Amino acid sequence: MSEQCFQKVTPELEKELRAMFPGKVYTGSEINEDYFHDEMPIYGKGMPEAVIEAGSTEDVSKIMKLCYENNIPVTPRGAGTGLTGAAVALDGGVMIDMTKMNKIISYDEENFVVTVQPGVLLNDLAEDAQKRGLLYPPDPGEKFATLGGNVSTNAGGMRAVKYGCTRDYVRSMTVVLPNGEVTEFGATVSKTSTGYSLLNLMIGSEGTLGIITEMVLKLIPAPSETISLIIPYENLEECIATVPLFFKNHMQPQALEFMEKEIVEASERYTGKNVFPKELEGVQAGAYLLVTFDGDDMEALEDLTEKAAEVVLEAGALDVLIADTPVKKKDVWAARSSFLEAIEAETKLLDECDVVVPVNKIAEYLSFVKEAGKSYDFEVKSFGHAGDGNLHIYACANDIEEETFKEQVGKFMTEIYKKAADLGGLISGEHGIGYGKKEYLASYLGDTQMRLMSGIKKVFDPKGILNPGKVIVS
Amino acid sequence: MSEQCFQKVTPELEKELRAMFPGKVYTGSEINEDYFHDEMPIYGKGMPEAVIEAGSTEDVSKIMKLCYENNIPVTPRGAGTGLTGAAVALDGGVMIDMTKMNKIISYDEENFVVTVQPGVLLNDLAEDAQKRGLLYPPDPGEKFATLGGNVSTNAGGMRAVKYGCTRDYVRSMTVVLPNGEVTEFGATVSKTSTGYSLLNLMIGSEGTLGIITEMVLKLIPAPSETISLIIPYENLEECIATVPLFFKNHMQPQALEFMEKEIVEASERYTGKNVFPKELEGVQAGAYLLVTFDGDDMEALEDLTEKAAEVVLEAGALDVLIADTPVKKKDVWAARSSFLEAIEAETKLLDECDVVVPVNKIAEYLSFVKEAGKSYDFEVKSFGHAGDGNLHIYACANDIEEETFKEQVGKFMTEIYKKAADLGGLISGEHGIGYGKKEYLASYLGDTQMRLMSGIKKVFDPKGILNPGKVIVS
Repeated sequence: MSEQCFQKVTPELEKELRAMFPGKVYTGSEINEDYFHDEMPIYGKGMPEAVIEAGSTEDVSKIMKLCYENNIPVTPRGAGTGLTGAAVALDGGVMIDMTKMNKIISYDEENFVVTVQPGVLLNDLAEDAQKRGLLYPPDPGEKFATLGGNVSTNAGGMRAVKYGCTRDYVRSMTVVLPNGEVTEFGATVSKTSTGYSLLNLMIGSEGTLGIITEMVLKLIPAPSETISLIIPYENLEECIATVPLFFKNHMQPQALEFMEKEIVEASERYTGKNVFPKELEGVQAGAYLLVTFDGDDMEALEDLTEKAAEVVLEAGALDVLIADTPVKKKDVWAARSSFLEAIEAETKLLDECDVVVPVNKIAEYLSFVKEAGKSYDFEVKSFGHAGDGNLHIYACANDIEEETFKEQVGKFMTEIYKKAADLGGLISGEHGIGYGKKEYLASYLGDTQMRLMSGIKKVFDPKGILNPGKVIVS
Repeated sequence: MSEQCFQKVTPELEKELRAMFPGKVYTGSEINEDYFHDEMPIYGKGMPEAVIEAGSTEDVSKIMKLCYENNIPVTPRGAGTGLTGAAVALDGGVMIDMTKMNKIISYDEENFVVTVQPGVLLNDLAEDAQKRGLLYPPDPGEKFATLGGNVSTNAGGMRAVKYGCTRDYVRSMTVVLPNGEVTEFGATVSKTSTGYSLLNLMIGSEGTLGIITEMVLKLIPAPSETISLIIPYENLEECIATVPLFFKNHMQPQALEFMEKEIVEASERYTGKNVFPKELEGVQAGAYLLVTFDGDDMEALEDLTEKAAEVVLEAGALDVLIADTPVKKKDVWAARSSFLEAIEAETKLLDECDVVVPVNKIAEYLSFVKEAGKSYDFEVKSFGHAGDGNLHIYACANDIEEETFKEQVGKFMTEIYKKAADLGGLISGEHGIGYGKKEYLASYLGDTQMRLMSGIKKVFDPKGILNPGKVIVS
């Protein structure tokens, strides 16, 4: 919670809001409790005084203007699938629910872009674009996040190793600033050297600088073919050691994920499907790579698969299983996509981090994390994007007190964030900072950069009313 | 010139600087006149009071600290190949010459990055990386610009259509802030959601927010094969109309350039080589596309070339000439690379713009420009990056007075910038704003965005000493 002196949503203001947005304002017990937290409630809950469903840029502008004049904090919120508490109304005030602004407005197939509202779900755009032979490359694990949320965290996902992150697919956006002004950053062009990149500043700013109300996103022609490989290893060290070999041998995977046995088992319990091999010629699999290649030429993909198989088998893989039918591919990637839900289903107390380290430091980093985890009473599970060094590390406990867990996990996170920094990595690869990670951000970036970020926040939001208490330590 | 009250480099300060950097400080008549302007002297000349050759991050930090304390304006300068007056010392003060910081420090071939000093020339990195089988994809026309300059303008170039701009290849940078503090933005990783992207804010900020003293740049495995095609058309309209067909047919050129006959002729007079066909079966060529495809498989490239030839011939191309030997490829791209020098060699008075418009608006835009040009006493020549809508439009005159030229060209630019904006384009695709384009920037972006940019400038540079009078209208 920040220290600013915010005002409350008075009965008069509530009346005014209800008159402006009939049927779209919720207060008190009308507010569904789902709005009080995101997917990581351990970072705290907050009850907004009013939730308003926005229907247009103009709606958002009107709300912001009123709140700006009255010094009321505003929290923009998409699907609430975040993992850092960024979309939680820690200071009360007004929450703007963006999920009803969920139209795919238009495709421009000559310029390979699509115009969307921010409440469109990633999954909906992905499926819709696919019908036109187009691919929206960013592919975060959570398919039911909003695109506005994806842009606000610069979400990465599985295909970042080949296609880059959400940042690389945002051409322009309409933004409502904290004082209600409407502006547009960027344009439907791929090149620009037209002043400071306010567009890139907005991307990844987690709803603290302005509210995105429309976006033009880049698409690419969809590759017509994919092949996925499941590659089991005896242990995580051998598994991770083969990752740089893909790049050295100029094989460009669309996705290159690693996962430990425990995570795979949890996921298979959750989905009820058995797709990963557990034992190969008497050797237990301890870790896996899951690799996808894409392209337009099946023969070339098959050659690539053969080459990849040779390389990994020579490097110690136990086997290479090819998922080349739609059903097999779906099952194996469904298993991967349900890792977080599978962990949540089995775990009472959960915390996580999504550090990113240079690709050739993953093995060293994970060894450190495993060793560090042994001093605590929780279990450490990990999986992640081996191809780009973005690792998801979970601390899971079922039989200790929440306070003990929080205390221990705080120490553990401090240790492993420090190690990531020492290896040339960063605090977050894709989840963002929100509320839960801001102390770590401040200690990682140091005073100079935090002063610059604070200064930028003040330029956009002089009253500090937009998503207060997030990203920047106040 | 800006209105701030700057101090002069006093004899005492000069003495102090000479003691700190023996043999590396130049004042008065010691300063080579080349430092007074960039490649577009029409935007004004400026004489620095002192030029200092920086040798390290520490040097830059010491200079900035001294100038900050004494309120002396500082202009960072690379190779001086800019086209907007960004590296000209309009307010006098100290110019920091970065060209001696020109070491390629180290390659990290496991993470596909290279660490360089900012004074390394684009051409030097390109050649050095190539020896290791690596490609630094950004390929601006000016090969003898510094990489620091490239990053400061988010330079684009020929290969942006396939590989993106300089922005996409900067992983991290060491920056000296205006007060002399040294900080580092980004990391050697491809994914990040770790606070506001100060890295992306620096990219394209034209030396107004901080001075880049070291950079980690991304490389890719060099494609082993390329084929270039020269495609003549009777006129520019037909030429440009085929551009979207490449994308619709999922052919991904590495480069896709257009050029008018007049530019080609000037370039051939300049290089003394005749590589573009002028007449085909009695029809005069009025415009050309120059296309390159790249890949690792020559057979696949040949198939692609055949497909491309079919598509363009059906759309009205007069012929398709294949440059598949190293000599032919070199000649044709050397012709393309010398367009600006060729124009400069033949022209007394020159102004230019590098607007960017959506790819499917290029034809409409160029028709407008041609028509608009008819009202003036100068000649209009154009070429550019057809694949990404980034157009270089030159106003050239030899027999009118400079004042008349400036007045006319001002009106012309206002017209054509407005049209670019109306079509959803931007002021600059790759050259930047500098001093010459800042009024156009302000009128294009409007008060809200200029206020945000000004605010950001003040956060980084509260005294306004770093590259004053550039980008932002003071």
